[in-house]
Amino acid sequence: MNDLVKALTDLLGAEYVLLGDETAPYVADWRERYHGKALAVVRPGSTEEVAQVVKLCAQHATPIVPQGGNTGLCGAATPDMSGNAVVLSTARLNRIRHIDSANDTMDVEAGCILQNLQQAARDAGRLFPLSLAAEGSCTIGGNLATNAGGTQVLRYGNTRDLVLGLEVVTPQGEIWRGLRGLRKDNTGYDLRNLFIGSEGTLGIITAATLKLYPLPVAQCTALLALGSLDDAIAVLSAARQGFGASLTGYELMAGDCLRLVNQCYPQQRLPFEGESAASPWFALLELSDSESETHARERFEAVVGELLEAGRVLDAVIAENITQSKALWHLRESIPLAEKDTGKSIKHDVSLPVSNIADFIERANAALQAAVPGIRHIIFGHLGDGNLHYNVARGPDMSEDALLARQEDVYRIVHDCVHSLKGSISAEHGVGQLKRDILPQYKDPVEMALMHRIKQALDPQGLMNPGKVLVTS
Amino acid sequence: MNDLVKALTDLLGAEYVLLGDETAPYVADWRERYHGKALAVVRPGSTEEVAQVVKLCAQHATPIVPQGGNTGLCGAATPDMSGNAVVLSTARLNRIRHIDSANDTMDVEAGCILQNLQQAARDAGRLFPLSLAAEGSCTIGGNLATNAGGTQVLRYGNTRDLVLGLEVVTPQGEIWRGLRGLRKDNTGYDLRNLFIGSEGTLGIITAATLKLYPLPVAQCTALLALGSLDDAIAVLSAARQGFGASLTGYELMAGDCLRLVNQCYPQQRLPFEGESAASPWFALLELSDSESETHARERFEAVVGELLEAGRVLDAVIAENITQSKALWHLRESIPLAEKDTGKSIKHDVSLPVSNIADFIERANAALQAAVPGIRHIIFGHLGDGNLHYNVARGPDMSEDALLARQEDVYRIVHDCVHSLKGSISAEHGVGQLKRDILPQYKDPVEMALMHRIKQALDPQGLMNPGKVLVTS
Repeated sequence: MNDLVKALTDLLGAEYVLLGDETAPYVADWRERYHGKALAVVRPGSTEEVAQVVKLCAQHATPIVPQGGNTGLCGAATPDMSGNAVVLSTARLNRIRHIDSANDTMDVEAGCILQNLQQAARDAGRLFPLSLAAEGSCTIGGNLATNAGGTQVLRYGNTRDLVLGLEVVTPQGEIWRGLRGLRKDNTGYDLRNLFIGSEGTLGIITAATLKLYPLPVAQCTALLALGSLDDAIAVLSAARQGFGASLTGYELMAGDCLRLVNQCYPQQRLPFEGESAASPWFALLELSDSESETHARERFEAVVGELLEAGRVLDAVIAENITQSKALWHLRESIPLAEKDTGKSIKHDVSLPVSNIADFIERANAALQAAVPGIRHIIFGHLGDGNLHYNVARGPDMSEDALLARQEDVYRIVHDCVHSLKGSISAEHGVGQLKRDILPQYKDPVEMALMHRIKQALDPQGLMNPGKVLVTS
Repeated sequence: MNDLVKALTDLLGAEYVLLGDETAPYVADWRERYHGKALAVVRPGSTEEVAQVVKLCAQHATPIVPQGGNTGLCGAATPDMSGNAVVLSTARLNRIRHIDSANDTMDVEAGCILQNLQQAARDAGRLFPLSLAAEGSCTIGGNLATNAGGTQVLRYGNTRDLVLGLEVVTPQGEIWRGLRGLRKDNTGYDLRNLFIGSEGTLGIITAATLKLYPLPVAQCTALLALGSLDDAIAVLSAARQGFGASLTGYELMAGDCLRLVNQCYPQQRLPFEGESAASPWFALLELSDSESETHARERFEAVVGELLEAGRVLDAVIAENITQSKALWHLRESIPLAEKDTGKSIKHDVSLPVSNIADFIERANAALQAAVPGIRHIIFGHLGDGNLHYNVARGPDMSEDALLARQEDVYRIVHDCVHSLKGSISAEHGVGQLKRDILPQYKDPVEMALMHRIKQALDPQGLMNPGKVLVTS
């Protein structure tokens, strides 16, 4: 047994140091796009043990790959093929340390499953608003490391906006005890936001103080049929004005997306008929009210009514109850599944200023049709945040292989278009391995240089999740 | 003429390089608590000129002190007495570069006066919510450098929460062009938040992309008489639940504060009589509504009515119109003036978890009475943010000098108390020179070490606003 593995076993006990085949679930991502090897997988049970593991690895100049629920989309939690790295799973750091109702905060450990935190907040009569597809298995540590987005960003912001304090183990194995429940604290540099979103390359987040919010009393959902992207943007603006902070969802979907869902899953019917069902765009609108069902509905009908009258909305279906509301959301959530059922596609997670969304779609569609004639565009996303899932599927006369052979070209065309319209090539999924090599093409060189300086300053040995986010020597 | 001064004059023109007596307005803070000297004061007119100034200073190993409206409270914009430093005023960087209504953002230069930005947003039918006492003369660059707070934090957050992108000149005179209007962007380390709040010690912010919000349609204000601090906290919780994000203000005031205002300015009458006027605590509550005057008022009366019935609120006055609302806010704003009229006091800008506020006040009051018998406590603040202005004035039998002779003891007692209850010794004013030397006593040593590493990495020559925030050799 290697010296380091022996020391780790002495520290944690053999039960919590996985070797050989036992490491399999930890060395590939869940979509099986990235594969690696690990010297060992360790599962420390406390922050102090994490710190000791990091110190031992530093002494042995051994890289560490932190891992939460292993649900990431960019390969940030998968080790490389060298087999040199130790994967550090945060799964056993899964305690909710403290819920402070008067302060509307909770202190939680990195390995807590997101869904459990949502439930714990609800049990305390509060809302923890972070919500995303993987919530049943992703951990808050991973959400923090990638600054996860999700469906509630329009109202509550990204993960970083939900955090007041952090506890972090540095690359030297020191513990920064920064769990603070303070909404104002101007005593120096903002280290919290530096660690959030750094994808485990600057240290390991072991716990966080999260913000809690009042639970909404009522919610209202509607599906709107829209004649154009310009209308979609005008309706967003009117909804922001009319609902203020009660606007909690605004999801854009190309008409083709919903018709595809209907085609793949005929039991999921579009709630429109005739011309409305053939609309080029749809939007899912959600209002969360702090007052009452009645008020939510009246308010909703007033604003949507005005938009119908003004011709900005062609048609609208307002959910009558929770079942109908869920059915509308289910249409939206079924788009990726329907997309998958019809074959592999090339996916992009991009963001743009809302004012450039229409231009972007026009330019990117045209450039892609010129380069790869006949492809289909699958466009949906969180319009309220300027975040589009802009995906590309094969046309009827094209094989899947023919499409995938053009993957790099498609990426380049879409990302170039995003860049020229002041957008981001990664809105909510992060960089990881997937976008590491193209990042310098799209990022300001001064910004890249600053990132390297910070990495060098905090992790001079280069042992924290090497090969992720930045190319380091 | 010194070589550097000559080079700066060649670059900017003599008009924008102030020397000798002309530097006077720039080398002391507005409260005249800090005094320094400057080799020169430069007033560059563009980001490119800022970069050139920084390069020249770096070549001559000359420190730079960035300065906005010079309204800070901690001496962060005042040079030291050596006369070695160049003060860089951002006053001429005062253009609003672009307002993007569809994206709800505006790109503005660092030297813009805050009030002008509020007005520009209003002219575009939007709200820029940052609001604080110095708004008529402070600049957004200074607000960003100190992460300013103010009266709208409860709803909209601190300055950092209002920013999407930055343009920054690094200590090497490079320009990071990071003006992004994106609500989601997960492409690497969060440099934006690192520069915000760093008080000019890591680089010079020259422009920012700010978030805009819908203008509220109606506002409602009430003054509540409260029987205890516990009630004040319970009422805050109920108001958060009942109003959701419409709750935009919750200011706590000790009864003595309002009675002092009434005594100093008899025309400002407390709107209560009898027992209610003698209440130990008052709270100013503000609701901003996206719907209508009528709705705001009905909602307000419903929630406050329930609190009255439950006995959590002893008495309440709801403003009938804008004039009455302003009169209520004026009571709150007059507290520091009345305080000043009765002599010098020892001030603290602290924050605590809301759940520890009552404990803090009890402990700090007792410890101070034990150490300096007879002093008076002047306590008010933004309770919704856990931010207290906890001030100490002389008692009736004490001279001002006797009080001020104990200033260091008072600071220590209050800050020790804050620290033991997990609070911050600077909630919204920053560190500057004022709290630099005591910061290491209250900050986690790992956090201090990380701050020094980042300073060293970004500013190895130590020329950016030296002697502020951190003690560097």
